[in-house]
Amino acid sequence: MVKLSKFKIGLCQLSVTTEKKTNIDKACSAIEFASKQGASLVVLPEMWNCPYSTDYFEQFAENFDDQESASSYKMLSKLASQEGITIVGGSIPERCEGQLCNTCCVFGPNGDLLAKHRKIHLFDVNIPDDISFKESDIFLAGSEPTIVDTDVGKIGIGICHDIRFPELAMVYQARGAHLICYPGAFNMSTGEALWELEQKARAVDNQLFVATCSPSRFSAGTYTIWGHSTLVDPFGNVIATSEHDETIVIAEVDYSAIQYTRDSFPIEKQRRQDIYKFIDLHV
Amino acid sequence: MVKLSKFKIGLCQLSVTTEKKTNIDKACSAIEFASKQGASLVVLPEMWNCPYSTDYFEQFAENFDDQESASSYKMLSKLASQEGITIVGGSIPERCEGQLCNTCCVFGPNGDLLAKHRKIHLFDVNIPDDISFKESDIFLAGSEPTIVDTDVGKIGIGICHDIRFPELAMVYQARGAHLICYPGAFNMSTGEALWELEQKARAVDNQLFVATCSPSRFSAGTYTIWGHSTLVDPFGNVIATSEHDETIVIAEVDYSAIQYTRDSFPIEKQRRQDIYKFIDLHV
Repeated sequence: MVKLSKFKIGLCQLSVTTEKKTNIDKACSAIEFASKQGASLVVLPEMWNCPYSTDYFEQFAENFDDQESASSYKMLSKLASQEGITIVGGSIPERCEGQLCNTCCVFGPNGDLLAKHRKIHLFDVNIPDDISFKESDIFLAGSEPTIVDTDVGKIGIGICHDIRFPELAMVYQARGAHLICYPGAFNMSTGEALWELEQKARAVDNQLFVATCSPSRFSAGTYTIWGHSTLVDPFGNVIATSEHDETIVIAEVDYSAIQYTRDSFPIEKQRRQDIYKFIDLHV
Repeated sequence: MVKLSKFKIGLCQLSVTTEKKTNIDKACSAIEFASKQGASLVVLPEMWNCPYSTDYFEQFAENFDDQESASSYKMLSKLASQEGITIVGGSIPERCEGQLCNTCCVFGPNGDLLAKHRKIHLFDVNIPDDISFKESDIFLAGSEPTIVDTDVGKIGIGICHDIRFPELAMVYQARGAHLICYPGAFNMSTGEALWELEQKARAVDNQLFVATCSPSRFSAGTYTIWGHSTLVDPFGNVIATSEHDETIVIAEVDYSAIQYTRDSFPIEKQRRQDIYKFIDLHV
């Protein structure tokens, strides 16, 4: 049961610095600002508390079981409760069993942790003379899709490279998602070609909303970030987006567009289950 | 074994008339023109021999078993052999067991029929005050994916609405396709939002080439056609496209881009078969 089927979303495209406390303070202000603008759901970027760089992940990581020292985690919980909103907390490095994960925490309006998504598809890339990065050397991959019931609908979570895999979005669609949130930090080599394209494709092929939130271009870290935090509707329309500078996008989500699109184009009923079959191994 | 891994493709965006003979003559000239420009593969639009209209399908339909009367079919076979090229023959109404199918025939350089694809996903749409069409009232849907080994690579075939289903493209990718050809006739309600988006999404998510071929805007028939026949590479780049007028797009396909893209972004290896599984029920 969705409490709010029409609500405002805030996408906080933050500039990430090398000071953890500064990053937390900035995120805190951004969430408060978005909430004051009426946002019932606020989304943060991938790695908003820590530069995207192997030099910082270990040092900035938090163990969520030790909540006293988990300052980013604590702030998100406090702000969700203080503002009475849902927060999809981008991602931060999580310390888990002696390893690191790239993890998104979702908090409800009473400050409770509703779900935790560990990035499933790690970003290993190797373009000669361009970009080379092997996230799987640093992070342990998550092994479960994350879909969460909130006051603002059923939300599926993916982190950055997770968006490249239609299968994950199909899992969420089949489980009843209204919205998929992808905190992400695409780079300059893939941003222009793929970022908006993949958002629209996931939205259109699954007839649901997609929201993304990226750090701003000139964040600290290993590589230059594409930016362009965006909200896309089930017909692939860009409802709101940004350029690459630090900014907060406020936009309206109206879930009635989901039913309208599905009534107009009943592609779900038109799938040919006699020809192909998609299996979600976790249900 | 691909004979040609770098070759020219011709996309014949034809204006379809209410005269079958005129349509065949125009297609014949277009194929000859494309071949003279060096095209080793020529693609025709969906319903190139017949207006897209219930008034014409029955009258223009051909029974491929009765080749004497199947004038469109015969012309394609003759031209493929005459020019020594591969032809993805768009689609025409096929008479099959007392019913009609929306069917694409693929011919090889010796004029032999290599494959026949009957549109799998029929286009049923209902947008209030806009467009309403129920293809399933007219056509019998095909029940098999079609992938064919040709001199110009392994080609998967889809017709128009087939492109809306990521599953069919995933079937072709898993079976080793280099290229998916979608003859299609998107309309003004979906063309701008979805046509190029879906082509790029199928190309990028499966890391292969996608070619589409549409009738031109002012073709005879029930509705106004989007046009925009296009070739997209595995990274989502539009290699060549057209506006909506009658035209022939000639462009180069270089399959080395497939391996390059897959080496750079090894998404195939990164799929999480422990989390989701896609099954092709026809292999």
